[in-house]
Amino acid sequence: MKRSTILGVIAGLIVGLIIGVFVLSPGSDSSKPAGQNVATSDVESIKPVRWKMASSYSGNLILLGTQGHFVSKRIRTLSNGTMELKYFDPGALVPALEVFDAVSTGAVNAGWTGSGYWAGKVPALQFFTAVPFGPGAGEVLAWMYYGGGLELMQEIYARHNIFSQPCSLISPEGSGWFTKEIKSLDDLKGLKMRFFGLGAKVMEKLGVSTQLLAAGDIFPALELGTIDAAEFSNPAIDLDLGFYQVAKHYYFPGWHQPISMIELMVNLDDWNSLGPIQQQVINSVCKESILQSFAQGEAIQFSALQELESKGVIVHRWSADILEALENAWNEVVTEEAEKDADFARVWAALSDFRENYKIWGDLGYLD
Amino acid sequence: MKRSTILGVIAGLIVGLIIGVFVLSPGSDSSKPAGQNVATSDVESIKPVRWKMASSYSGNLILLGTQGHFVSKRIRTLSNGTMELKYFDPGALVPALEVFDAVSTGAVNAGWTGSGYWAGKVPALQFFTAVPFGPGAGEVLAWMYYGGGLELMQEIYARHNIFSQPCSLISPEGSGWFTKEIKSLDDLKGLKMRFFGLGAKVMEKLGVSTQLLAAGDIFPALELGTIDAAEFSNPAIDLDLGFYQVAKHYYFPGWHQPISMIELMVNLDDWNSLGPIQQQVINSVCKESILQSFAQGEAIQFSALQELESKGVIVHRWSADILEALENAWNEVVTEEAEKDADFARVWAALSDFRENYKIWGDLGYLD
Repeated sequence: MKRSTILGVIAGLIVGLIIGVFVLSPGSDSSKPAGQNVATSDVESIKPVRWKMASSYSGNLILLGTQGHFVSKRIRTLSNGTMELKYFDPGALVPALEVFDAVSTGAVNAGWTGSGYWAGKVPALQFFTAVPFGPGAGEVLAWMYYGGGLELMQEIYARHNIFSQPCSLISPEGSGWFTKEIKSLDDLKGLKMRFFGLGAKVMEKLGVSTQLLAAGDIFPALELGTIDAAEFSNPAIDLDLGFYQVAKHYYFPGWHQPISMIELMVNLDDWNSLGPIQQQVINSVCKESILQSFAQGEAIQFSALQELESKGVIVHRWSADILEALENAWNEVVTEEAEKDADFARVWAALSDFRENYKIWGDLGYLD
Repeated sequence: MKRSTILGVIAGLIVGLIIGVFVLSPGSDSSKPAGQNVATSDVESIKPVRWKMASSYSGNLILLGTQGHFVSKRIRTLSNGTMELKYFDPGALVPALEVFDAVSTGAVNAGWTGSGYWAGKVPALQFFTAVPFGPGAGEVLAWMYYGGGLELMQEIYARHNIFSQPCSLISPEGSGWFTKEIKSLDDLKGLKMRFFGLGAKVMEKLGVSTQLLAAGDIFPALELGTIDAAEFSNPAIDLDLGFYQVAKHYYFPGWHQPISMIELMVNLDDWNSLGPIQQQVINSVCKESILQSFAQGEAIQFSALQELESKGVIVHRWSADILEALENAWNEVVTEEAEKDADFARVWAALSDFRENYKIWGDLGYLD
């Protein structure tokens, strides 16, 4: 082949490659896919993303961990391999309860966690995991997506350079595991208990001494007797963590977390670097994930309860008077906390207003 | 330029284009996107899709129609413009109640509809819209996705060359609009009423004469007095359809449809022609849509109820004895129908088994 022919081939190759990759490829911004008649604004050039996502939950923990892996995988699939949010177990990059700081500073791009872990840092955020005696799934989703809840959550997080949204929804929790039977409110006094979120302060009112431990630290603490009791999640998840081996009394219902939202945090600068379609893929997968985890959570509790009972666990339901005492204590707690923190007061007022309106429908629309 | 150089440029251009489009582009099947480390199986070459979707609901009808448009738009966005399911209002391609046949034969690629419309054709499919005195959102989603419900639905639809799945979930319905107050079961006898799905046969047991009308035909039938009563959907949707202008008595709760699933049907050959990622985009969007419609449905009922009352509508709740009579009639209906149709019996048995197990959890896990 002549030198000029070779040069021609090289020149043609380069131009062809450029046209092929940037003009004709399916991800191109500047042309419509062949045969398609869609708005150009819906077609964007996709910039690959490869992110680290630090989790507060071990990846093999059912629902809490497995759902994070689902989200990671689904984002990769729907983006046709162009977006990767790699799941890292607690401790692999940062400890379980330091995800907020890591995402805020950009030490990691994303976090898989629950906002109730930041009680000491930003008290108002606790409402976005769970509210004692609060709304069930339908009502909380209505508030979050169509009642202003999500906007409040994102406004508060943005001040910490975080974009966050619910990305999973967990069935009602159990009320906790106790090494001894609780026959009256007096039996609670002086107990040391692992407790998460807004319910912790309620338990304190009833004389319980609470501390927040990450999932992996609860079992050893119960086993060593450092704590006398622990709530973590619902039967299927609690079964997975093996608490039944060190505590036999399991109480219901989980008044402190009628549902729990798990969230996907993204460093705000990273979020803003995404194209609109990339953002929509993440938003879409989070909503799908909420639907899926809600469905799965409801499906796997009865067999977990049966298995726990077969292992000698005694399942109890709190009496009406204990539940009433807990609800009264909650009303005191929320009033006190609202006096201490303006954001806390604002979120509580917004949620309470919504619930008052929702009641018009909630009381009428449902079979008892 | 020499002839050999020109030939070289052309040859290089062709090779470059081929490499650029099919090897290096983000949608390529045969290589990983630059800088990405993902499983090759997750990356596919996207074949553009441009489909017609015939709807049983007018596109501007809140939730039932608007959600179909959302699904259409979301699929286009997440596929980066490569998939289009164009929404067609009832009558534009086929009448509202002929969507099944149109999708089955391939006259249209897809349908936005509810399986209760095919009561006369495939009775068992009715369970996949709503079940009288049946499960609420959490329980039905658990059954569908993790309890075998979806597999049953898809097995039955496949025999009719249709791939279908729930793609929206609607809040509890109202029990119906009546031109006269219903003070006792006797007042129901002889009424002519629009009724959908499994509840229709229950009403027949109580002496009501029922007929199935598409949304757009209900108002004129009430206005002309062709019918005395009608159920259609929940307050926000019923408000949108204007029934309050021709009937003033609105009854609750909607025992016949504690939730309703709306579905996206796809002609099975068309479905099978999709790549795995395209199928996952549709599945993902349907789950997102269920989450979103459930949330929106719960959020917009109270203001609809307030507006209806301001327009002079009298809202009633059925007495306990009327609800009991309805439930007894339902138990007779479901037993009779199961005797007539093997698939109906099979789906009912599967759902009943699941519900029996779910009760272990449902009774324990929730605050009253």
